[in-house]
Amino acid sequence: MSGSHSHANHTIHRHHHHHGWDNSLKPVLTVAPGAVIDLETIDSSGGQITPDWTVADMGKLDFGKVNPTTGPVYIDGAEPGDAIKVTLMAYRPSGWGWTANIPGFGLLADQFKEPALHIWKYDANTLAPAAFKGLANVPLKPFAGTIGLAPAEAGLHSVVPPRRVGGNMDIRDMAMGTELYLPVEVAGGLFSLGDTHAAQGDGEVCGTAIESPMDVTVKLDLVKGANLKFPRFRTAGPVTKHLDAKGYDVTTGIGTDLMEGAKAAVAGMVELLTTRHGIAPVEAYMLCSVCGDLRISEIVDMPNWVVSFYFPRVVLE
Amino acid sequence: MSGSHSHANHTIHRHHHHHGWDNSLKPVLTVAPGAVIDLETIDSSGGQITPDWTVADMGKLDFGKVNPTTGPVYIDGAEPGDAIKVTLMAYRPSGWGWTANIPGFGLLADQFKEPALHIWKYDANTLAPAAFKGLANVPLKPFAGTIGLAPAEAGLHSVVPPRRVGGNMDIRDMAMGTELYLPVEVAGGLFSLGDTHAAQGDGEVCGTAIESPMDVTVKLDLVKGANLKFPRFRTAGPVTKHLDAKGYDVTTGIGTDLMEGAKAAVAGMVELLTTRHGIAPVEAYMLCSVCGDLRISEIVDMPNWVVSFYFPRVVLE
Repeated sequence: MSGSHSHANHTIHRHHHHHGWDNSLKPVLTVAPGAVIDLETIDSSGGQITPDWTVADMGKLDFGKVNPTTGPVYIDGAEPGDAIKVTLMAYRPSGWGWTANIPGFGLLADQFKEPALHIWKYDANTLAPAAFKGLANVPLKPFAGTIGLAPAEAGLHSVVPPRRVGGNMDIRDMAMGTELYLPVEVAGGLFSLGDTHAAQGDGEVCGTAIESPMDVTVKLDLVKGANLKFPRFRTAGPVTKHLDAKGYDVTTGIGTDLMEGAKAAVAGMVELLTTRHGIAPVEAYMLCSVCGDLRISEIVDMPNWVVSFYFPRVVLE
Repeated sequence: MSGSHSHANHTIHRHHHHHGWDNSLKPVLTVAPGAVIDLETIDSSGGQITPDWTVADMGKLDFGKVNPTTGPVYIDGAEPGDAIKVTLMAYRPSGWGWTANIPGFGLLADQFKEPALHIWKYDANTLAPAAFKGLANVPLKPFAGTIGLAPAEAGLHSVVPPRRVGGNMDIRDMAMGTELYLPVEVAGGLFSLGDTHAAQGDGEVCGTAIESPMDVTVKLDLVKGANLKFPRFRTAGPVTKHLDAKGYDVTTGIGTDLMEGAKAAVAGMVELLTTRHGIAPVEAYMLCSVCGDLRISEIVDMPNWVVSFYFPRVVLE
């Protein structure tokens, strides 16, 4: 699952991080295309949440420190209109992580108004499924939630929303072997990475994944004149093989609005897990975020669309 | 993939079909819970499109005849608040199908204004991947696009939009072995089924799948007092195993609106297939519909969401 050795030409240590995107930030490293780089990352709490935290500590969380990214890296020759090809070569996970419900954040924020926190321990070598309170075992697939370049627009931009240049995309399949193409908007691209996750489902519905510090090895190549509208990527193989074995329980939301459909589908799964498996609602919600997938089943049968939420049965069986 | 024998208690022939949902329709069959039924279906053109059609015939298509469903079946004892459990026991495909771009219909209708038609031939016994013009081979997974009950509201309702009681959900994973739970709104439920597909991706982005007449065997059970808000289902196993082998090319759409994100992601894939593989745009669009998947990668990083379109590389390699 994760490479334990790297053949990097460069290492960027975790203190070389920044908060938010700003194309005036000075690069911490300048490389030629083809460079292989080891990046140390800080977890998305900015190192605030530690393995000994409990939910009582959540009030201390300073949101100004969230989601630091390691970088930026200047890639020689990169110009607006080009793409940076990021090959995700290896992840070296730390063996611990956290998942939280943060009031005001997440798809069902209206329904889950109280903070919640779960600290995960997992085997960083075997990456065996991680236990959740004796209720579930979640298969792991490490990836970086935030991978991006600096936007053309001047000034400091929040790290929270992803953009055309990437950033906090939280795409579960940025796993080892994936090749990501990011549109360049400024000279050198200014690549940074952070927000590493040990596992997440499509949607990241509660707002957090298994947030877990880890080191990452990337290769950065330059594609001249790619002219991409948005990021693209190629996976090295199947994307849900770790979740598939026993099939899925699926809930749906049907109606004229995809967002409302997504909310209904996830609320339906929370209800199913609560009712059938006796899991507390907020725990069900956090489990959905780390292993369940939001899919658009149909988007053409006017005026009603179907959004489906797939929960892998292997997690509970 | 598909059962060739059934142990049905009942058969409903294809002339017992209706157009649209209406709870005043007389049942063609009344059964006790647990009944196993063979249903013959007509394709979603209502039998108008035949294997010898070309795109020149598309102007003849009468939209009043589309999407007939076989039924309705009255299930003894079913009352509002219950659910009908539909076990999809077997599909017996016909060996041919069609995919069309129908002007005014489909996710990218603004971009694809001219009719297009592809007639598929496939091996109904082996269900080996179906060839598309020497350009691609699409793995097959037969399912019924329309499975539903009659709505509580009186009158005739269009068959096109799915509803709380199911209907034209076009969920790709209604394949053999899936157990679907539909909310009952009227006495007897009034079950009907049609719109069978030999393959489709999540989204059905061009508006049609591999539309293919086939016979279907279902078991209908009754779950008293289920009180479902929307349909739910359980799959018997992995859902994309037939597509996974070589990984995926993925395009994204990032922004504040999921619908716009979906359109950008699919338009990006059409461009990729056109540019890299020399496939005509409308053919790429139809291929996306029959084998590519729309996923919501993140829906929490305010205010921008990521919609991704996954195209299975095995189709082209």
